Amino acid sequence: MSQSPNRQWRLARRPVGMVSETDFEYREEPLPQIGDGQALVRNLYVSFDPAMRGWMEDRKSYIPPVGIGEVMRAGCVAQVLESKAPGLAPGDFVQGLFGWQEYAVAGPGLGAATKIPPGTPLTWPLGVLGITGLTAYFGLLDLGKPKPGETVLVSGAAGATGSVVAQIAKRVIGCRVVGIAGGREKCAWLTGELGFDAAINYKDADWRDQLRRACPGGIDIDFENVGGEIMNTVMAEMNLHGRVVLCGLISEYNASKRMLGPYDTILMKRLTVSGFIILDYAPRFTEAVMQLGQWMMQGKLRHVDTIVEGLDAAPEALNMLFDGENRGKLLIKVS
Amino acid sequence: MSQSPNRQWRLARRPVGMVSETDFEYREEPLPQIGDGQALVRNLYVSFDPAMRGWMEDRKSYIPPVGIGEVMRAGCVAQVLESKAPGLAPGDFVQGLFGWQEYAVAGPGLGAATKIPPGTPLTWPLGVLGITGLTAYFGLLDLGKPKPGETVLVSGAAGATGSVVAQIAKRVIGCRVVGIAGGREKCAWLTGELGFDAAINYKDADWRDQLRRACPGGIDIDFENVGGEIMNTVMAEMNLHGRVVLCGLISEYNASKRMLGPYDTILMKRLTVSGFIILDYAPRFTEAVMQLGQWMMQGKLRHVDTIVEGLDAAPEALNMLFDGENRGKLLIKVS
Repeated sequence: MSQSPNRQWRLARRPVGMVSETDFEYREEPLPQIGDGQALVRNLYVSFDPAMRGWMEDRKSYIPPVGIGEVMRAGCVAQVLESKAPGLAPGDFVQGLFGWQEYAVAGPGLGAATKIPPGTPLTWPLGVLGITGLTAYFGLLDLGKPKPGETVLVSGAAGATGSVVAQIAKRVIGCRVVGIAGGREKCAWLTGELGFDAAINYKDADWRDQLRRACPGGIDIDFENVGGEIMNTVMAEMNLHGRVVLCGLISEYNASKRMLGPYDTILMKRLTVSGFIILDYAPRFTEAVMQLGQWMMQGKLRHVDTIVEGLDAAPEALNMLFDGENRGKLLIKVS
Repeated sequence: MSQSPNRQWRLARRPVGMVSETDFEYREEPLPQIGDGQALVRNLYVSFDPAMRGWMEDRKSYIPPVGIGEVMRAGCVAQVLESKAPGLAPGDFVQGLFGWQEYAVAGPGLGAATKIPPGTPLTWPLGVLGITGLTAYFGLLDLGKPKPGETVLVSGAAGATGSVVAQIAKRVIGCRVVGIAGGREKCAWLTGELGFDAAINYKDADWRDQLRRACPGGIDIDFENVGGEIMNTVMAEMNLHGRVVLCGLISEYNASKRMLGPYDTILMKRLTVSGFIILDYAPRFTEAVMQLGQWMMQGKLRHVDTIVEGLDAAPEALNMLFDGENRGKLLIKVS
C-alpha cells in the first residue's frame, strides 16, 4: 500500500463572499487506519456544486454545516484500496461524500460508500446519474410537470443541473427550451450541441428584450437556479398557472450580507406558494356550495356578516375593509 | 312599477390610495328599460370585498378593470321586478354582478343572474355560499391540503374569507387554527365565538413573539390574505414542506405606488412556486437513476462535464461555478 501522505483541504474559517485559499487549510496527513466495517478509498473525481458554498455557512439548513477544521465535504468517485467492510473489495469503484482529500475512510454515516455498477463511466455518478441528474429529473418532472409544447426556461442553463433539465425537457418531453447563461460562446454551445431552442446571454445589454423575443408565448415553467434580477425578469414573463421550480439561487450564495429574502425561505423550507384566484374553480362551484351548505346545516360553519345600511355609504364601506372594521362578510343593505 | 330614480355610483377616476367619494360620481338615472332575454332587478344586498379595490386599477388582471364612467362593479343579491328572461319571474331572488346601484338590468355577460334556491337566507349567497365561502373552500382544501393536527395560520382572520377558512380548518378538518387580526376585541371574538385556538393582535408591539408562542410547532399552512410585513413574519415560522395559499395582499391594495413584488406576480398569475431540495426524494433515487441511464443509452441525454486536474485547485474550482466557467458538471480529477 502506498505510503504517500493524504493531501486534504480543511475548512479554516467561514468564508465571506467568494471563497479564497485562506478560507481553507491545506494539510498532509498520514494515511488513515480503518476499523471494522470501514474501507480505505482513494478519490478519483471530486464533484463541485454551488450548494457546497451553502454548506460552509453556519446556519440551519437541510444538512449540518461543515465544521471549522473538518475536511471540506464533497461528493466523490473513488476506488477501494483496502476493506474491512462487507460487500466492498479492493478495486471496487464507489461513490460517497469523501471530501476534498486524496484518501478517505468510507463507513457508515455521511461517508457511506455506494458501489458503482461495473461498466458505468466513472464521471456519470457525479453528473447525469448523480445528484445533479436526480435534481433535474425530480425537479422538472415532479414539480414542473412539463407538457409537450410548453416553454421551459432554465437559468444557469450551462451548469450541471440546467443542462440536464434542458435535455429532458426537450428530447424526452418535447418542450420548447430557452436557457439563460453568461457568454456568447456558451449560448452558441447550448443551442448548437445541446439543442436548446434559444439561449440568452445575460451579459448582453438587451438580454431582457432577447428573452421576451425568445418566449413569444410566455414561459410555462421556470427551472430557477440563479435568483435575483434574472429570476425577477423571468417571473414577469410567466404564463398563468406557470410553475416555478426553485432549485437554486446561485446569484446570492456569495453575497457578503445574505439577504434572506422570501425565495431563500421558500427554497430552504421547500415551501409551496400557490397564487390563487377563485374564478379558476368556477366549474366546481356547485360541488362546493352543496358541501358548504351541508356544513352550515350541521353547525360546523357560521355565516358571519357586518351590514351597513344604505347605498350612500358605498365608498366608505369599501375603505372599512382595509381599516379592518368588518367582522366576516361586509354587506350594504340597499333598502 | 316604481317610478323612483335609479340611484347609482359610477367610477369617476382611478383612485390613489384609499378611495374617497370624489373618486365616484353619484347619479340618479331613470329606470332602465329591458329587452328580450333581460330582467329588471332591484338590489337588496351589495357585497364588499377587498378585490374590488383592484378592479378599479387600470392594469391587466384576471377580469377587466371597471371603466371610467361605468357603474362600480359588485356582487349583489336582488329581486326580480320585471322579466323578459326565460326562467326568471317577478319576485324571484337572484344574485349577480349588479353593481353599486338600486336597480339593474340582468342579462347575459357580467350582469348574468343566478336564481337563489328558495329558503336560502338572502345574505348567504354573498358570504359562506358565495365567492367568499368558495374561496375559503378551494383555497384551503385544494391548495392548502390540511391534515388533522396541522397548524393553520390565517391572516385577515376576522374577514369574510378568513373566518370561513378558520372554521373549515378547525371544525371540519381538525387543525389547530391561529388567526392574525387587528384589535383586541376582534381577537377575543375569534377565539371566543369562532373557536380559533389563538388570535394575534398585530397592533400589539410584541405580536411577533405572540405568534411564535401561539405556534410552538411552527406553521404548516399559511392562508395569506394580507401580505407585507405580516406575511414575511409568518413565512419565517413555516415548517418544512409548508403550503402558502396566496389569496390576497390587502396590505398592498391601497399603496399609492404599488410595489409589484414577487408575491403580487405569483397571486395574479396563479403561479406555483415550489422550493426544492433533492434529498427529499432519496427514496426514489433508484427509480430515477434507472430512467436516466436508459435515456443516456437512447441518446436522449448527454453527460457533459468540465474537468479540472489536481486537488490543489479545489478552492478555485468552487469559485468557477459562480463565475460560470464550467459547462455541465464541474469535477476535479484527483490523480
